[in-house]
Amino acid sequence: MTSASRYTYLGPEGTFTEAALRTLPEAATRALVPMISVPAALDAVRVGEAAGSLVPIENSVEGGVTSTVDELATGRPLMIYREVLLPIAFALLVRPGTALEDVKTVTGHPVAQPQVRGWLGKHLPEAVWESAASNADGARLVQEGRYDAAFAGEFAAATYGLTPLVTGIHDADNATTRFVLVGRPARPAAPTGADKTSVVLWLRDDHPGALLDVLQEFATCGVNLTRIESRPTGRGIGQYCFSVDCEGHVSDRRVGEALMGLRRLCSDVRYLGSYPRADQVRPVVGEGTRDEDFLTAADWLTRCLDGRPGPL
Amino acid sequence: MTSASRYTYLGPEGTFTEAALRTLPEAATRALVPMISVPAALDAVRVGEAAGSLVPIENSVEGGVTSTVDELATGRPLMIYREVLLPIAFALLVRPGTALEDVKTVTGHPVAQPQVRGWLGKHLPEAVWESAASNADGARLVQEGRYDAAFAGEFAAATYGLTPLVTGIHDADNATTRFVLVGRPARPAAPTGADKTSVVLWLRDDHPGALLDVLQEFATCGVNLTRIESRPTGRGIGQYCFSVDCEGHVSDRRVGEALMGLRRLCSDVRYLGSYPRADQVRPVVGEGTRDEDFLTAADWLTRCLDGRPGPL
Amino acid sequence: MTSASRYTYLGPEGTFTEAALRTLPEAATRALVPMISVPAALDAVRVGEAAGSLVPIENSVEGGVTSTVDELATGRPLMIYREVLLPIAFALLVRPGTALEDVKTVTGHPVAQPQVRGWLGKHLPEAVWESAASNADGARLVQEGRYDAAFAGEFAAATYGLTPLVTGIHDADNATTRFVLVGRPARPAAPTGADKTSVVLWLRDDHPGALLDVLQEFATCGVNLTRIESRPTGRGIGQYCFSVDCEGHVSDRRVGEALMGLRRLCSDVRYLGSYPRADQVRPVVGEGTRDEDFLTAADWLTRCLDGRPGPL
Amino acid sequence: MTSASRYTYLGPEGTFTEAALRTLPEAATRALVPMISVPAALDAVRVGEAAGSLVPIENSVEGGVTSTVDELATGRPLMIYREVLLPIAFALLVRPGTALEDVKTVTGHPVAQPQVRGWLGKHLPEAVWESAASNADGARLVQEGRYDAAFAGEFAAATYGLTPLVTGIHDADNATTRFVLVGRPARPAAPTGADKTSVVLWLRDDHPGALLDVLQEFATCGVNLTRIESRPTGRGIGQYCFSVDCEGHVSDRRVGEALMGLRRLCSDVRYLGSYPRADQVRPVVGEGTRDEDFLTAADWLTRCLDGRPGPL
Repeated sequence: MTSASRYTYLGPEGTFTEAALRTLPEAATRALVPMISVPAALDAVRVGEAAGSLVPIENSVEGGVTSTVDELATGRPLMIYREVLLPIAFALLVRPGTALEDVKTVTGHPVAQPQVRGWLGKHLPEAVWESAASNADGARLVQEGRYDAAFAGEFAAATYGLTPLVTGIHDADNATTRFVLVGRPARPAAPTGADKTSVVLWLRDDHPGALLDVLQEFATCGVNLTRIESRPTGRGIGQYCFSVDCEGHVSDRRVGEALMGLRRLCSDVRYLGSYPRADQVRPVVGEGTRDEDFLTAADWLTRCLDGRPGPL
Repeated sequence: MTSASRYTYLGPEGTFTEAALRTLPEAATRALVPMISVPAALDAVRVGEAAGSLVPIENSVEGGVTSTVDELATGRPLMIYREVLLPIAFALLVRPGTALEDVKTVTGHPVAQPQVRGWLGKHLPEAVWESAASNADGARLVQEGRYDAAFAGEFAAATYGLTPLVTGIHDADNATTRFVLVGRPARPAAPTGADKTSVVLWLRDDHPGALLDVLQEFATCGVNLTRIESRPTGRGIGQYCFSVDCEGHVSDRRVGEALMGLRRLCSDVRYLGSYPRADQVRPVVGEGTRDEDFLTAADWLTRCLDGRPGPL
Repeated sequence: MTSASRYTYLGPEGTFTEAALRTLPEAATRALVPMISVPAALDAVRVGEAAGSLVPIENSVEGGVTSTVDELATGRPLMIYREVLLPIAFALLVRPGTALEDVKTVTGHPVAQPQVRGWLGKHLPEAVWESAASNADGARLVQEGRYDAAFAGEFAAATYGLTPLVTGIHDADNATTRFVLVGRPARPAAPTGADKTSVVLWLRDDHPGALLDVLQEFATCGVNLTRIESRPTGRGIGQYCFSVDCEGHVSDRRVGEALMGLRRLCSDVRYLGSYPRADQVRPVVGEGTRDEDFLTAADWLTRCLDGRPGPL
Repeated sequence: MTSASRYTYLGPEGTFTEAALRTLPEAATRALVPMISVPAALDAVRVGEAAGSLVPIENSVEGGVTSTVDELATGRPLMIYREVLLPIAFALLVRPGTALEDVKTVTGHPVAQPQVRGWLGKHLPEAVWESAASNADGARLVQEGRYDAAFAGEFAAATYGLTPLVTGIHDADNATTRFVLVGRPARPAAPTGADKTSVVLWLRDDHPGALLDVLQEFATCGVNLTRIESRPTGRGIGQYCFSVDCEGHVSDRRVGEALMGLRRLCSDVRYLGSYPRADQVRPVVGEGTRDEDFLTAADWLTRCLDGRPGPL
């Protein structure tokens, strides 16, 4: 098996990440290798042991997955080629025969807890919660008899010989996790018309209004942001970089223009790729920021330089 | 002991949070009560069982402490009255008699790991890391013989009968954690001239450039931001609120003006308090944004309304 | 006759300014006194010899009437209380009996010429143009036989015993002149909901982006501009002040807020009044910039200062 | 004499415009032809009867010369190749033998009057002023005995056989007129490092904040404005175009970038040329807006598109 046929993902087996990865058609022809951490999953790509890696980057309840955001911002460069959105709903997994009133102890990954806290308070107010290393690990501990029930994806039941006693559990409606398929830097996929572009920005230290200028650069080019997250640079309190996703593809002129502006404004910019939006939403591109507007403007500038600005 | 004489903090004993709390003079006259989580520490204040609570809010290596940021943004309102900055350096704590070459297993809180990873790779490349529930808990597990060494604050050694084998361990220079002392809403402390103000902002949903407008509002009033962090609102991917710290005190006219502007621009704003800056840095207040400039402008407007705009 | 019963206007009799003044109901009860220049008309108000003065300020073909703009910007302060919009169409006035083919020489005020140039080229291509001191003066010169025809308002025919040979002459559709009724500073008229406010702004010399900041201040408060005109300050090339009209009344909170911001930003601001719009267009006031939004924000700030920021 | 050897200027002979034209070295080898108006002077260039034309465009006391600004904005396109700054000081010209106390009537061009009004009030309070068609024409009328004295440039004395009785008269210090040398469109002169670029902008009608966006475009590219003047488009009150001068040359990347942005933002843009600044002031070009910053950014974008974003 060559590395090209291998994808890593944040394991263990039976987690939402694996479920997300299996929604990608190409996953069917790859060996899918669970890794114990995001850095481990991404390092396998960096050193050439895998062609890609699927890792969670953002959760609509918990926020950014900081290990993913930070790994993409620093270290050997990687690029994003796909994104996957997975609605998150938990199942309460039990050993066959367990009834709801038998459940005294429950487990799950710490990030699961805030998403099921309300359900627990209503249906199992007396149950004791203990955290597990992952949702799948919690399922395994139920299999071993350490706990009575585990919150995990319904798809994890079969792997561990458990039964989904209750399904569709989620405190927040529309709880969704966003995953990204990461690979080594290469030419981005062709634009689809419904794309996203990701970058990391380091502002110039000596400029308090720099973030305003950055947002203004996007606005001037008619490019909307879909995510902005500040991350510490490790150089002291108040020193941030910004992880940003915007609408559009690097080959769209308005996006390219905005990126060049950022490159000039910022002390550094890391391009993380352009890729199809999972929700396939096509941006509304305003008058003056369409590709043809940029081409017309560039052509006009050439004519000005040549002394043929042309009739009005 | 009344609740007024009690401060909670993110426990257990022997953590950096306790060390930070003990830097506050008033801590000497309070009962300091460790709590098992940030929500637990803050809920004790909410229900009146404690007068205040010290919790970490931001780390210069790891970023925002999301449980603190989210707890302050939602639930029953609280306010920040003080901040503490604590340089973070770890000690490697061992049982008396242990030498560095004897250390095969190490433990510590997961957030400690990225801050000591480089040191470990250089000095203990063979040692196995396992995470503990807190740095102090790691020290306890060393005391019990479960691990050979724990990363924790040097101050934790005495509590657990351990010896600091190596001190001053930190991969990033200037690693610092910022803590806030939180209480129930009350009149903010008097301005010192070197203050900070914290708010949480919910942008109007239907307005893509809303963040730009928010930053513009601060800029127009001459107020610099010292921290901005996006947090999901729980209403779906791409729905954020922003936790923001800015220079100045709510009673400074430029800050009050900016806050009123935010209140108009945003669908909601939560005021989290104005308090002395731990670093005592006084902001440079530009021409046109000093208190007297606002007063002059307000007086002039009154005269315009009265038909006495006055000589130029 | 007291000064309170007297209005001056830019004369002589029979000009468009007189016609504009006669559209105001109060003109019927005032003595209307023509003056030879804008400064003379305004000085009569300044020294108390007249209660008001009507002068042209802007023409949709020729632009700002600089003597009016400059007189309002400097010298003893005056305020605007009304505006009048008058569609400008010329009549070709001749002595009774003159036919179009008899017209060899035409006259009129220099500002009339560009507005009739196209008509002249088409209908009287051979006629010689000479300028007169005013359109009415041109009519007088035709009466005296010095020229064959004069361009003037049709209403001027009777005064000078002339006949309007052709009427409705104007090269540009919608050619309009805007006049303002000026008086000594006093409380502005009550807001009507369709008002305008006029100011003159002197930017701080040392700040190249100051005009951008000024426009941003209006935008932040949701106030649209209807006119902006740069005028030299007399201190050298590149030194300007700006004469600005905006939507709304000084007693509208969003306008008052913008004015206070300008007062802080600018080295000087001269308030020229708030008055009903002649076109009675009511502005669209966006969410967050209505009077109640400002009141809510101010009330909220007071509660923050008092330690009662209130439930979200 | 070919048209290439001919320059027109706003006449008649003996005006400041002729004096300004004679400061240009190339004027020595050209036939200098006075014309009766700015349109006439420029039309001679348009139809090929002259290679260039010098006309006043801006006066530090009176403001923009609207006929020049409007002629450049509309009609067959022309371009600016040079600018000349001329300090304006008047001489009081009299027939030989006339003493100051003999002066009962004075004349001059109407734009001269506000610049000498203060001097007149102090030294000749009783003298009667009447306007002449130009300063030079005023001198001719003094020669003919129609008036006792004329305000004109000292250089006009010889032409009309007059004596400069008083020189250096000007109410405002630093009164300066700016002239431009205009020709048919051709490649702009090479950049000198101290250049200016002129454009006329038509905002999109349906966008109230369009002027703010335009100024933002210049600011984003680090380009300072040196002049901005609104002019009516002739389509109704409140409909303007903007005549703008900015620092830099069209071949400077930051200027080219700003111009392309304007071309996209505006419904139309007319490029009026890039030419050496008369004051030879070199702009301060900020970090991120130098030519090499634009080149670096463009190179980086190409590498992003190629999948080689490069090491940070």
